[in-house]
Amino acid sequence: MKLVTFTHQGRTQAGILADDRVHAIAALVPGAPDDAITVITQWENLKGKLAAALKQAKGGHALSSVTLEAPIRRPGKILAIGLNYADHIAESGMETPKEQVWFTKLPTSVNAPFAPVQMPKASNALDYEAELVAVIGKRCKHVPKERAHEVVFGYACGNDVTARDWQFKTPQWVLGKSFDTHAPFGPAIVTSDELGDPHNLGIRCIVNGETRQSSNTKHLVFNIWDQIACISQAMTLEPGDIIFTGTPGGVGIAAKPPRLLNVGDVMRVEIDRLGAIEARIVAE
Amino acid sequence: MKLVTFTHQGRTQAGILADDRVHAIAALVPGAPDDAITVITQWENLKGKLAAALKQAKGGHALSSVTLEAPIRRPGKILAIGLNYADHIAESGMETPKEQVWFTKLPTSVNAPFAPVQMPKASNALDYEAELVAVIGKRCKHVPKERAHEVVFGYACGNDVTARDWQFKTPQWVLGKSFDTHAPFGPAIVTSDELGDPHNLGIRCIVNGETRQSSNTKHLVFNIWDQIACISQAMTLEPGDIIFTGTPGGVGIAAKPPRLLNVGDVMRVEIDRLGAIEARIVAE
Repeated sequence: MKLVTFTHQGRTQAGILADDRVHAIAALVPGAPDDAITVITQWENLKGKLAAALKQAKGGHALSSVTLEAPIRRPGKILAIGLNYADHIAESGMETPKEQVWFTKLPTSVNAPFAPVQMPKASNALDYEAELVAVIGKRCKHVPKERAHEVVFGYACGNDVTARDWQFKTPQWVLGKSFDTHAPFGPAIVTSDELGDPHNLGIRCIVNGETRQSSNTKHLVFNIWDQIACISQAMTLEPGDIIFTGTPGGVGIAAKPPRLLNVGDVMRVEIDRLGAIEARIVAE
Repeated sequence: MKLVTFTHQGRTQAGILADDRVHAIAALVPGAPDDAITVITQWENLKGKLAAALKQAKGGHALSSVTLEAPIRRPGKILAIGLNYADHIAESGMETPKEQVWFTKLPTSVNAPFAPVQMPKASNALDYEAELVAVIGKRCKHVPKERAHEVVFGYACGNDVTARDWQFKTPQWVLGKSFDTHAPFGPAIVTSDELGDPHNLGIRCIVNGETRQSSNTKHLVFNIWDQIACISQAMTLEPGDIIFTGTPGGVGIAAKPPRLLNVGDVMRVEIDRLGAIEARIVAE
């Protein structure tokens, strides 16, 4: 299934996207929760009821008549791994890290999948990073690599938008990664059982119609199971936490000369079987 | 006033601490919210009513009969600044940064002010860092330094507990700063109007009765107004976001030889006029 959060006639709630129609979860299953994190938390109980209800569902809303929001509007945590595709490591002039390099994007940076992204007043060095996003489904800690697939609810397209000047002002990247609107993801969360293997998906970033990044998630240095095994040694992961799993080569800052973003540019991130998200750059 | 979150007979809610008694906010002002972030968000409307109610308050709970929780159990963001006292910069062998060095502690690391702190299974290099914590009171962005005091709700004692081995595995500090239980703060949030100047407070960390850190917040390299002006250029700050404002010299890793923490050690952080928090180290 494909879990979305959508707004229709002023009301925002969780829904299921099927055949270009969006069905409110609370309409499919009376008494079901209407926010995505609670839906994910109760998924084992809900998924059978939702699947049955969808088979008979009439109505719902045409996808074109609703506004898609970020599938999870306020994740508890956004973890992101750096230097995790060989070609991106090479273009960054770095060596392949022996340890996973983790940073965070703060939750106020979340943005809807088709909403404008801000060129900040405080930066003029904006860049894109196409990434596969994994969404945690179960509260967990100390997850062995072999079982990490069990705790992933699903996957989405993400863009780890970055203010490069702020990223590199100090050795800590977080401010440059956490500007408002700089964590768009979506359009839906495709559930793990529907997607199958997340490690063989074409991933692309297209700017103003030109393909700038094109790779495949099979080239991840540390795959998603490695990632969850690592971070869950330190902290409890919770339903709705999200992981940006790394970007391939082709980012703007690595081009010679650099090709950073301008107001009016349109960035599109596509991942096989997960759809696409797209954003125009607007001045803050 | 002093805002707390407390548990009594199985119910957790926001309260006001006065004369060693804790009064539930919803009992003082009928219809008032019972969680701290909503209380902070509505503070301008609530504070007069709370002050009036407290003058006539009978009842409440003896402080010794309740369990104090973290004043905000799940902040939206925890920002923390590194290398922000001259003596700590010197002991770290670093130069005074020209730019503010920001990192984060993830929200699942929050801990109650007197709860045990975990020696993680995955680390044996645990350290303390006494810090003044500032709590944001108003949604804001692009706050000029001159007005930054207007957006601070209040202050508390914090301990930026750190797994040094994980902090330095890669250049990004966040995993080593975000282990579960490693962000204790409290015991209460003392409101800005009650505290007055936050930049002239003695701050100490005492381990097993021995004073390891002793300084004064007047020695902050970047003061709290500088800090808010910087980070609010990048991101919207929201009520209940918290800022760890830096630690003075005397951390365990800088001692020669290093004096890291062991299971059974007791860490106490005291700040003038803000009280103290205390935690015993237990094995995860």
